[in-house]
Amino acid sequence: MDSSNPSVLTGMASSRTARVAVIGASGYGGLQTLRLLHGHHGLAVTYLGGERSAGQRWSSICPFLPLPDDPFVQTVDPERIADAADFAVLSLPNGLSSQLTPQLLQRGVRVVDLSADFRYRSLDRWSQVYVQEAQNLKRQDADLCRDAVYGLPEWHGPAIAGAALVAAPGCFPTASLLPLLPFLKQGLIETDGIIVDAKTGTSGGGRVPKQSMLLAEASEAIAPYGVVGHRHTSEIEQMAEEVAGHTVQLQFTPHLVPMVRGLLSTVYARLRDPGLTAEDCTTVLQAVYRHHPCIEVLPVGTYPATKWVRHTNKAMLSVQVDTRTGQLVLMSAIDNLVKGQAGQGVQCLNLMAGFDPETGLPLQAFYP
Amino acid sequence: MDSSNPSVLTGMASSRTARVAVIGASGYGGLQTLRLLHGHHGLAVTYLGGERSAGQRWSSICPFLPLPDDPFVQTVDPERIADAADFAVLSLPNGLSSQLTPQLLQRGVRVVDLSADFRYRSLDRWSQVYVQEAQNLKRQDADLCRDAVYGLPEWHGPAIAGAALVAAPGCFPTASLLPLLPFLKQGLIETDGIIVDAKTGTSGGGRVPKQSMLLAEASEAIAPYGVVGHRHTSEIEQMAEEVAGHTVQLQFTPHLVPMVRGLLSTVYARLRDPGLTAEDCTTVLQAVYRHHPCIEVLPVGTYPATKWVRHTNKAMLSVQVDTRTGQLVLMSAIDNLVKGQAGQGVQCLNLMAGFDPETGLPLQAFYP
Amino acid sequence: MDSSNPSVLTGMASSRTARVAVIGASGYGGLQTLRLLHGHHGLAVTYLGGERSAGQRWSSICPFLPLPDDPFVQTVDPERIADAADFAVLSLPNGLSSQLTPQLLQRGVRVVDLSADFRYRSLDRWSQVYVQEAQNLKRQDADLCRDAVYGLPEWHGPAIAGAALVAAPGCFPTASLLPLLPFLKQGLIETDGIIVDAKTGTSGGGRVPKQSMLLAEASEAIAPYGVVGHRHTSEIEQMAEEVAGHTVQLQFTPHLVPMVRGLLSTVYARLRDPGLTAEDCTTVLQAVYRHHPCIEVLPVGTYPATKWVRHTNKAMLSVQVDTRTGQLVLMSAIDNLVKGQAGQGVQCLNLMAGFDPETGLPLQAFYP
Amino acid sequence: MDSSNPSVLTGMASSRTARVAVIGASGYGGLQTLRLLHGHHGLAVTYLGGERSAGQRWSSICPFLPLPDDPFVQTVDPERIADAADFAVLSLPNGLSSQLTPQLLQRGVRVVDLSADFRYRSLDRWSQVYVQEAQNLKRQDADLCRDAVYGLPEWHGPAIAGAALVAAPGCFPTASLLPLLPFLKQGLIETDGIIVDAKTGTSGGGRVPKQSMLLAEASEAIAPYGVVGHRHTSEIEQMAEEVAGHTVQLQFTPHLVPMVRGLLSTVYARLRDPGLTAEDCTTVLQAVYRHHPCIEVLPVGTYPATKWVRHTNKAMLSVQVDTRTGQLVLMSAIDNLVKGQAGQGVQCLNLMAGFDPETGLPLQAFYP
Repeated sequence: MDSSNPSVLTGMASSRTARVAVIGASGYGGLQTLRLLHGHHGLAVTYLGGERSAGQRWSSICPFLPLPDDPFVQTVDPERIADAADFAVLSLPNGLSSQLTPQLLQRGVRVVDLSADFRYRSLDRWSQVYVQEAQNLKRQDADLCRDAVYGLPEWHGPAIAGAALVAAPGCFPTASLLPLLPFLKQGLIETDGIIVDAKTGTSGGGRVPKQSMLLAEASEAIAPYGVVGHRHTSEIEQMAEEVAGHTVQLQFTPHLVPMVRGLLSTVYARLRDPGLTAEDCTTVLQAVYRHHPCIEVLPVGTYPATKWVRHTNKAMLSVQVDTRTGQLVLMSAIDNLVKGQAGQGVQCLNLMAGFDPETGLPLQAFYP
Repeated sequence: MDSSNPSVLTGMASSRTARVAVIGASGYGGLQTLRLLHGHHGLAVTYLGGERSAGQRWSSICPFLPLPDDPFVQTVDPERIADAADFAVLSLPNGLSSQLTPQLLQRGVRVVDLSADFRYRSLDRWSQVYVQEAQNLKRQDADLCRDAVYGLPEWHGPAIAGAALVAAPGCFPTASLLPLLPFLKQGLIETDGIIVDAKTGTSGGGRVPKQSMLLAEASEAIAPYGVVGHRHTSEIEQMAEEVAGHTVQLQFTPHLVPMVRGLLSTVYARLRDPGLTAEDCTTVLQAVYRHHPCIEVLPVGTYPATKWVRHTNKAMLSVQVDTRTGQLVLMSAIDNLVKGQAGQGVQCLNLMAGFDPETGLPLQAFYP
Repeated sequence: MDSSNPSVLTGMASSRTARVAVIGASGYGGLQTLRLLHGHHGLAVTYLGGERSAGQRWSSICPFLPLPDDPFVQTVDPERIADAADFAVLSLPNGLSSQLTPQLLQRGVRVVDLSADFRYRSLDRWSQVYVQEAQNLKRQDADLCRDAVYGLPEWHGPAIAGAALVAAPGCFPTASLLPLLPFLKQGLIETDGIIVDAKTGTSGGGRVPKQSMLLAEASEAIAPYGVVGHRHTSEIEQMAEEVAGHTVQLQFTPHLVPMVRGLLSTVYARLRDPGLTAEDCTTVLQAVYRHHPCIEVLPVGTYPATKWVRHTNKAMLSVQVDTRTGQLVLMSAIDNLVKGQAGQGVQCLNLMAGFDPETGLPLQAFYP
Repeated sequence: MDSSNPSVLTGMASSRTARVAVIGASGYGGLQTLRLLHGHHGLAVTYLGGERSAGQRWSSICPFLPLPDDPFVQTVDPERIADAADFAVLSLPNGLSSQLTPQLLQRGVRVVDLSADFRYRSLDRWSQVYVQEAQNLKRQDADLCRDAVYGLPEWHGPAIAGAALVAAPGCFPTASLLPLLPFLKQGLIETDGIIVDAKTGTSGGGRVPKQSMLLAEASEAIAPYGVVGHRHTSEIEQMAEEVAGHTVQLQFTPHLVPMVRGLLSTVYARLRDPGLTAEDCTTVLQAVYRHHPCIEVLPVGTYPATKWVRHTNKAMLSVQVDTRTGQLVLMSAIDNLVKGQAGQGVQCLNLMAGFDPETGLPLQAFYP
């Protein structure tokens, strides 16, 4: 239960408990990580780090999320992090993580990075996509990029378990890849002409105030953004190609939806075999995800609402087939801050620390 | 101005004013029509008809929309409608309109129907799509279906002006066809594999209470519905084929968005000529819609938010091209209750009554 | 953890587990109760009852809340409920509960009723307030009304623990009484002229569709309703008078807020001693609620947002004093469906079954 | 109609058209003023001034509000403003207006100021309430404060018509004073113990990004703020005292509501004569506001929703009386950015320029 083990956040972790540092604690990624680890029986937060909030009492920043003993937020000091923690979850702006990560790894701290810094196997590819960050940073950690594990637990579980550095996937890639990969792997769809039309709540824009994310601006509106060339396009393609075994080109369009949380990805692909039915395709997904408790494949004709997975680490998938047009329609709903970010990070942490991947993660939503 | 001519709703219409009956007054379609005609200098509402609300004072039903002299809602009596009005706007459930329309036409009342009853040129086609309604009704008005004009003013203006019966298009078809038709007409895109991913506010579900449209259910959620085979698919295809000159097959998926009004259609199609740029394609749209004040083509890189057209009769269109994939991405935002329903109905009425199509229609949104 | 004990919902309850019937399972009260009992280590749902949904698979009604073994909803049969359960939570429309409750009590089932039927110690009082229900029902269970315990655990804990029948308080009374009672008990405020200005999300209106609760109607609006004479006025006064020891008259005005969950009560009262400060009054609350984990008293100057308690069984209280006017301002935020309804019901169940009151109840919100 | 006179915004104002400068054009106050003046037949915007946005094309800042000829935003230069305009509407942060206003007045430009700088008759009072601004500015314009007219048109119409400088009231004072003043003027209520519990949408927080106004933070929540001592308390009291003829002390508590626009004020006061009914009190309001088209007094039992006045310059008032407690409950709904800000500014401009006060102002909402 939520309140059953308040001691795990106090730093008095038992011998069997892994110690976790959360860096970037007051942003949404950090907040979610803290909330999810609250009550986790095997992972204890032992270091709260943040730049802007260093030196402040936790309750003065986040009165809505009381932590035991109301700790102070500390500066981001690799030495002290290594003293206090076995693992670190980094929830920092793109670019900053690549500066801190090597220092932590050198000191034996295993890292789950929620940023995009280590999601590409090739540093060059990262530099092409994150142009501005690349110009400011002059990274020379191509080896780290190559060794980092892309943290999609349902596909890279064993590698994550043994990794020193895990790059948690982006929210859009998570939602889009989960339904798509089984079909790519089995060669059931054409690998060109794939359309990913995605919709996200505004918390994906982070906690730093931006005009476009004000309630007054974002409410009562839906709009596309980053049309053609959004950074997550290449991230989705990289993983899709790895699984498909050859080039995949897709069209990715995100939309901003007037809600706090939730991400829905609607994916369109052409079936190679026009005889496949929605039931067949649902079976494909069920077979792949049968033993993965964070994935739920819905029956044909039931379509997921993001509310059904809100505050959970679940992805709900559904398939439909249009026999008239030969199109496969995949639908995938996640909570962008949980399965799309911090929850997936904790899922990776669980694997790294030797727990079942879903340990301590909520899988059942409150409704409505 | 809104308040400048209160007399036009009182029934004391001047000789130059056309008289309009609004039937189905207390649903969203009727309400919007009344609101839009309020202050119109050339169209006066002279008959308020409704079944459920007949006999009631208007103010007791809709205290938020005061009408001059606070009229009673009347029963739907063709004879009395014909005495009172030159035109009728029908905002009735699918099927009911086909019962009333012939009686009005016989009495010389010209009709704008907001339902789907006369949107198909072929009664057979309608019966295939609206199966349940067809079973209940046994319609035998194939001739009316054939003669009715599909009320998309930017494409059928002259026909609408001369029509006795206009079928106002559905909200999704309106938003989807406006950006798509110019490319189909000029043969610039492939006519198969078109994807229409559409998003609508909940007012599209009407004013009759449904569980799924409760704020508690629909808020903080986005979800697909009617995946594969939604009725508007065939309506879009019919008009697309008429303009393209041959068969068009498209994939249409609507999504419910937690907002009251607004409809965004994101359309994906493959360009035939891979050399076309976003600027070229924007020019294509601008050339077609230059003299249509209800259509605004945005510059390349500016994407429409539904809020920008809320409460207006405008469609805002934007184009992007992915030269890497050869995909054309069309975006189109409307207010589903105005340009997507009642506003388009009034636009048709304007043409039928000899006014400029945009007469009396708001084209500038309030923001935020 | 949420997923740690899936067996408790399967009916295979262990010897130490109390068996619970949930009647009215598909409304919001029933849904919340099921969700809260999911994963409870000491209370197992062993009977799902409902009228409208009887005979249906649970997953066909609520695909978003998977239950182990996907049970059928059963009819409301007192005999079979008594066979299957030690406790029953009734989430039924006002009036219906008074018909079922005696039959359950006779069969030894202890009842937590979420309706208003047993909230008044006097049946006459109930009949005056719930006039319409009283006319339809001709209740003759004045003794049950007298013996039922008003289920506010922080004030009636021991009585609840021993009760056969507990009437869970209304959402507005819960939020309003929690901050008010300590001041009434200690005689610190005038007992006339108290103003309770309350604000609730729309889920308080229930799951049965109503026009006023449609997203299209309730969104982007705040409005008062039930001004003067709302039924919860008398419920608040009854409990206030019991604690104050004499007559209390207050003005209660609810408002509908465009959000799903959450209830904020802002209470105004005149201090008897003009020298009391906000710190003094905060101390008063802290002293009373120190050992009650479901109540959190915020420091002076921190005001509760309903989001801070969403999906939790917590009430967050805050006090401010205006030394210029002598007014005490009390603020109280709860989740109307949890601490304001089903969570409070489970809190009562916990006491009745011998557990700590907060057992299995979430006390930490997800934010944002 | 909205689109009927596009020339009035082009600067080619006719001889009978008054010329208006809008300063602070890209904030919400400026945006609303521009939108409201769009289509006004007697007031033409001839100068767009802004600090941050100076030098930019209007369409690059606000693509959603196209202006004729797409003007450049200009610097705030008193000389050039005076050349171009007869009137200026200032929508600037508190404090800045007091620097610009004297320079405009000296050059013969009549000013409507939307800030709080000139709302107090006494500069000392202002300095006590706006402490921080006062420290930074060292204002010495006590005479201007004394001569400025408080721009509540229904109460100060003739003074506004003749004024050189009008201070448009705050949003909360507008909503609260309109229902309260008639009862204070006629001595029908006690002047102590008045409670004003107010609720506002987030656009009241302005367009400059703040964390607390992000959709992710403000959505799905209601919370009080500024409890005891909010600046609008003294502004309401000043005007209340002027009308009552003696001291008025009231308790004002604002709440943030998850919606864009709308402000509801619920006001509680004790009736002096316990025999007055809700009908009597409604008659009191109707008598006062009979000839004021921007005020609508609702029948007893109909309570205003803010949505009913959204995007309009209307205030909807309703009264209820609790004969049991002797309390008067006043409810008042406005659009905080229109009647609560820019619309009231235009109403004042109308009077100053010799038009009817409601000229060009929308009075009928779109619903839903």
